[in-house]
Amino acid sequence: MRVFSTIVSSSTRIRRDLFSFLSLFHSQAKSIPTRIPMGSGEQSLRQSLSEKLSAVEAQGNAVRALKASGAGKPEIEAAVVLLNKLKIEKAAVEKQLQASVSGDGGSADGVLSREAFRQAGVNTLERRLFFIPSFKIYRGVAGLYDYGPPGCAVKSNVLQFWRQHFVLEENMLEVDCPCVTPEVVLKASGHVDKFTDLMVKDEKTGTCYRADHLLKDYCNEKLQKDLTISAEKAAELKHVLALLDDLSPEELGAKIKEYGITAPDTKNPLSDPYPFNLMFQTSIGPSGLIPGYMRPETAQGIFVNFKDLYYYNGNKLPFAAAQIGQAFRNEISPRQGLLRVREFTLAEIEHFVDPENKSHPKFSDIANLEFLMFPREEQMSGQSAKKLCIGEAVAKGIVNNETLGYFIGRVYLFLTRLGIDPERLRFRQHLANEMAHYAADCWDAEIECSYGWIECVGIADRSAYDLRAHSDKSGVPLVAQEKFSEPREVEKLVIAPVKKELGLAFKGTQKNVVEALEAMNEKEAMEMKAALESKGEVEFYVCTLGKNVTVKKNMLSISKEKKKEHQRVFTPSVIEPSFGIGRIIYCLYEHCFFMRPSKAGDEQLNLFRFPPLVAPIKCTVFPLVQNQQYEEVTKVISKELTSAGISHKIDITGTSIGKRYARTDELGVPFAITVDSATSVTIRERDSKDQVRVSLEEAASVVSSVVEGRKTWKDVWASFPHHSSGCSDE
Amino acid sequence: MRVFSTIVSSSTRIRRDLFSFLSLFHSQAKSIPTRIPMGSGEQSLRQSLSEKLSAVEAQGNAVRALKASGAGKPEIEAAVVLLNKLKIEKAAVEKQLQASVSGDGGSADGVLSREAFRQAGVNTLERRLFFIPSFKIYRGVAGLYDYGPPGCAVKSNVLQFWRQHFVLEENMLEVDCPCVTPEVVLKASGHVDKFTDLMVKDEKTGTCYRADHLLKDYCNEKLQKDLTISAEKAAELKHVLALLDDLSPEELGAKIKEYGITAPDTKNPLSDPYPFNLMFQTSIGPSGLIPGYMRPETAQGIFVNFKDLYYYNGNKLPFAAAQIGQAFRNEISPRQGLLRVREFTLAEIEHFVDPENKSHPKFSDIANLEFLMFPREEQMSGQSAKKLCIGEAVAKGIVNNETLGYFIGRVYLFLTRLGIDPERLRFRQHLANEMAHYAADCWDAEIECSYGWIECVGIADRSAYDLRAHSDKSGVPLVAQEKFSEPREVEKLVIAPVKKELGLAFKGTQKNVVEALEAMNEKEAMEMKAALESKGEVEFYVCTLGKNVTVKKNMLSISKEKKKEHQRVFTPSVIEPSFGIGRIIYCLYEHCFFMRPSKAGDEQLNLFRFPPLVAPIKCTVFPLVQNQQYEEVTKVISKELTSAGISHKIDITGTSIGKRYARTDELGVPFAITVDSATSVTIRERDSKDQVRVSLEEAASVVSSVVEGRKTWKDVWASFPHHSSGCSDE
Repeated sequence: MRVFSTIVSSSTRIRRDLFSFLSLFHSQAKSIPTRIPMGSGEQSLRQSLSEKLSAVEAQGNAVRALKASGAGKPEIEAAVVLLNKLKIEKAAVEKQLQASVSGDGGSADGVLSREAFRQAGVNTLERRLFFIPSFKIYRGVAGLYDYGPPGCAVKSNVLQFWRQHFVLEENMLEVDCPCVTPEVVLKASGHVDKFTDLMVKDEKTGTCYRADHLLKDYCNEKLQKDLTISAEKAAELKHVLALLDDLSPEELGAKIKEYGITAPDTKNPLSDPYPFNLMFQTSIGPSGLIPGYMRPETAQGIFVNFKDLYYYNGNKLPFAAAQIGQAFRNEISPRQGLLRVREFTLAEIEHFVDPENKSHPKFSDIANLEFLMFPREEQMSGQSAKKLCIGEAVAKGIVNNETLGYFIGRVYLFLTRLGIDPERLRFRQHLANEMAHYAADCWDAEIECSYGWIECVGIADRSAYDLRAHSDKSGVPLVAQEKFSEPREVEKLVIAPVKKELGLAFKGTQKNVVEALEAMNEKEAMEMKAALESKGEVEFYVCTLGKNVTVKKNMLSISKEKKKEHQRVFTPSVIEPSFGIGRIIYCLYEHCFFMRPSKAGDEQLNLFRFPPLVAPIKCTVFPLVQNQQYEEVTKVISKELTSAGISHKIDITGTSIGKRYARTDELGVPFAITVDSATSVTIRERDSKDQVRVSLEEAASVVSSVVEGRKTWKDVWASFPHHSSGCSDE
Repeated sequence: MRVFSTIVSSSTRIRRDLFSFLSLFHSQAKSIPTRIPMGSGEQSLRQSLSEKLSAVEAQGNAVRALKASGAGKPEIEAAVVLLNKLKIEKAAVEKQLQASVSGDGGSADGVLSREAFRQAGVNTLERRLFFIPSFKIYRGVAGLYDYGPPGCAVKSNVLQFWRQHFVLEENMLEVDCPCVTPEVVLKASGHVDKFTDLMVKDEKTGTCYRADHLLKDYCNEKLQKDLTISAEKAAELKHVLALLDDLSPEELGAKIKEYGITAPDTKNPLSDPYPFNLMFQTSIGPSGLIPGYMRPETAQGIFVNFKDLYYYNGNKLPFAAAQIGQAFRNEISPRQGLLRVREFTLAEIEHFVDPENKSHPKFSDIANLEFLMFPREEQMSGQSAKKLCIGEAVAKGIVNNETLGYFIGRVYLFLTRLGIDPERLRFRQHLANEMAHYAADCWDAEIECSYGWIECVGIADRSAYDLRAHSDKSGVPLVAQEKFSEPREVEKLVIAPVKKELGLAFKGTQKNVVEALEAMNEKEAMEMKAALESKGEVEFYVCTLGKNVTVKKNMLSISKEKKKEHQRVFTPSVIEPSFGIGRIIYCLYEHCFFMRPSKAGDEQLNLFRFPPLVAPIKCTVFPLVQNQQYEEVTKVISKELTSAGISHKIDITGTSIGKRYARTDELGVPFAITVDSATSVTIRERDSKDQVRVSLEEAASVVSSVVEGRKTWKDVWASFPHHSSGCSDE
């Protein structure tokens, strides 16, 4: 049960973040809360601690009573011995509980070491300019980061591979739309009304906080640091944490009041929570009259172009459109470093498909892949993620359809080829309360890093929701046609209001009634028809009037007519894989980050074990010592690497070769060519530190063959003489 | 002289657009207006037309007088013949003048055909989704465009080549900074105060217009359509056009009043012109208290990171940083279609260099390039652009320094390799009044398209301006050091204010006076020293007080001291090539767009002659007819193309092969593989429409060898049997 409580609480912690971070949002419905059980171990520990505390207190009183009553020394000493024994027992339980609530599988040190690991990684990343806090000389802005040179190269490699793996291999239609978006588009998508977080203000200073963060921090702090709280209280706090995403502003405000939560820095009272829209607002054009926003996701740009893209695709389904671009989110108070930022790169795919046929022609290509999946049922019943074959998962209905399954498989391949550890990658199905009401199924690719399991890709079957929303708002039908080879006879519902009678009965509100009648679906209409035939009249709720009206038999006719149809017109379903590029890159950094002792053993050296595909620089060239001959050779090799398209760096400083290796290991450069003669060079592989000797002529082509995946290092190791040099790695 | 007046007026027309469009802006100083002479041909034509008009009028009066006086028929007829002759002469001069003012080298049809050409190109681009007006289903937003699938592919190819050509080949440090930028950064750069256009409002409806556009339109309209205006009036209007960028709000307002210009649609009166800041404003964080802007250029992100980047480069100069990213500009009323947009992609390089040594180690690589250059002197003296060798231009001092010249050469190579016609590409030097006061030299790569000569790349030596501005604002020194191999003795100016005396004399304003004294440069200080020694006191202007104060001899000491220095600390100069990617792509479209008659001769077919490097798709695969065998072959070829990394498209529709060729010619696909047997295929080249027959096994590799530039089509044509098929092209 330990494992379960850990996993669920960490995924819960992250969940809200993600559905709004990625475009999984759009427009969410409230739904039932998740059931989050407390680990039974923790519960019994709290119980036991509370018993031990009572026992210590009682024995302390007993000792004091004995002393006061002038009891004999041996008697008092025996009582003190017992007291000390009880204290030791209490301390032991306390330690166990401490370890348990820290959420790290038992060891309190786990948390510390996870944070130490993160700190070491982040320090290296920042020192080597993988990232830079933006506008640092002006003391920065929370939630904004620059990619420095190696980070920028990694990002560019990741995006290029994304384009190759998805856009080119799948013949997707790539588009590139502006970030500045007029309000009407985001009104239709639901962002203007619903893309909010609840905020509270320090009533004196005006400082803003995310209301759920304050409540979460309070609960976690209590649970982790105050070991004396009762098991009941602990259960209550855990329940609040589980409910966090589903609390209304009023409920959240009530909890904040109940727990006496105040502003973290000033301890001032807090305002009631109210929704704050997370979009950066601006104004388009000089009049100040056209409100606009910086897009919170790239998906909408694709939806509004559906009609043109469908035409471009020869009016055929399925097809996918894709977009890579910046998205913006005005976080209330960004935390979690590089994982929660105010501007980020999204790569999104909208795969449009006939809702009646979600098969995928290339499904068999990935059907045999096996990886960690975490279906809804396993989450609810307290099991952990398990290895499943994606083909079977679709066959058994665990994954809703082939196309969704196909993308899950393709995402798995994409992430693992980048260098994400498959053992720390799982596909977690959304629980009922996480999914929008219209969604058919939804899986997140979650990657485990020092912050827990982080959603990095969302893969959702969003049905026809988005296209319908834009059809309704714009009045432009965003539909597809299926032409029948032969006309088909279909039964069509016909609702014919008798306007004269309706006019007499409803006068000025006639229009509302007619619209409501015409909007009935088949079931409603047939029920009304039956009721009118049996009773002659029926009460009918008109939502635009907000009340019931009485509809009589003479006011409309409802019938079914047979018609010949030559085509079927329908709104396509959309299956949306949505990639948070920055999050993937951050997790990749953590998965590739290692420390190893220096040769002298006196320090820890950092390295990033990037696969050549993503490594910011593929190769370094080092003249062993500074002389003209070696520098000439270096130039020749550099020229050959350039013409082979291999990015590389030359280091002609006189620094020791060991230091130069260590420096480039920190950048994750997979290969180093060291020039130590006029005719041959050594090539060193970063992870093994193994070296081979290769002729000058072959050097560039050997490196490029491994970088481009035509050979492995093992092949190279088998083909060339090995080089071992005492002085090479320090 | 014709050529000169055309070129200067079109470059003048574009100039303001560009220095603010590209990051050439930053912060501009007012300077002297350009001298723009009117073409002497036009002037004499106007003179001549005016004489002809008078002559026609006089002769008309003479005829009427003869008739009234009852003169003889022969006499009247002779007078009428003369009148008609004068009318014909007038019409001829009118036509000549018309052609002249249309700015098209003599033919009035030129303007029309240029617009017709543009329209045909833009129609094709929009129909084939190279671009799409953004948010079209909501009736769009002026100045915002999407790149559709082929446009997106072209853009991605252009950016990838840019990265290869500049970042990788030159070992630049690429960074990627956010678009959201806090105010302080853009305050330092000057954008908050000066990145403005002058705007007027319709006083009744509130509609906004760019003031200079209205004045420009008025002048051009008068010059082009009203042929009766006098030569003097025409000269005045031309003078106004030339001055347009230098007019103050008051001067611009006065001209609008003088000419009685009203709102274009309503004819309502207009407000006085006032500056409108072109940045999209927003607010960072939830408090609403931190103003931010969407960056108007990417350069500032590099400048604020100078210190880290310099360290990353081993504290060595020169080095270059580069950034590709979105920039934003809230245009008052965008015109010129794809050339003037509110959001666009910039690619910028900031090359930091020691101001005392602007040589470039790779200059010899490009020194022999020859291309159209248009130095300042040629522009001022009415000559046209001429072919110059860049090495000579630098040697003669026409281009300020080697590094600037090196980038001009590299930009030339970049643009022409993309497919820009070298005959319609010129490098134009900025005139004195275009350049910021701090700039050392500045050249624009201008590409000629149907809108005239359009600045697409700016290459400026901006001296130390930007780094100094951010040093001053942030208090963080953005400097470089040159360590001397041996300490050097230098003379240092020492200004030592005697605070006691200054305090007595200036009390509360003492601080301002001290700061102003300490800020004197060497020349000012030595002059003051001399004056104080001879006169005992001196008047001294303190700009922070806005007045003169009297400084006496006992208030400060000025001396020169000898010091030993171990290093030189200085602010690097920056040379900035700045690329408007969207503009380059639009000009590329125009240079690659051609029309040719269909085989039947009954229609014009469009094609884009993109080089393979930028073509959105490199190859199509067509089974000649629909059958299973051909489709199998198609799949084999497709798989091989994919593994060779060649983007391609399969068209298995039963459409005639000629129509399929025409369809992909419109997308600029350079090669088509047609499957017409089970063992061999034909490969067709787009521009020549030539076809060769190639075995099935070789097909993919032949195409990839030409796409990747290892072979030319000529090589292929020489190596394989030619194929000619009557039915192949239509």
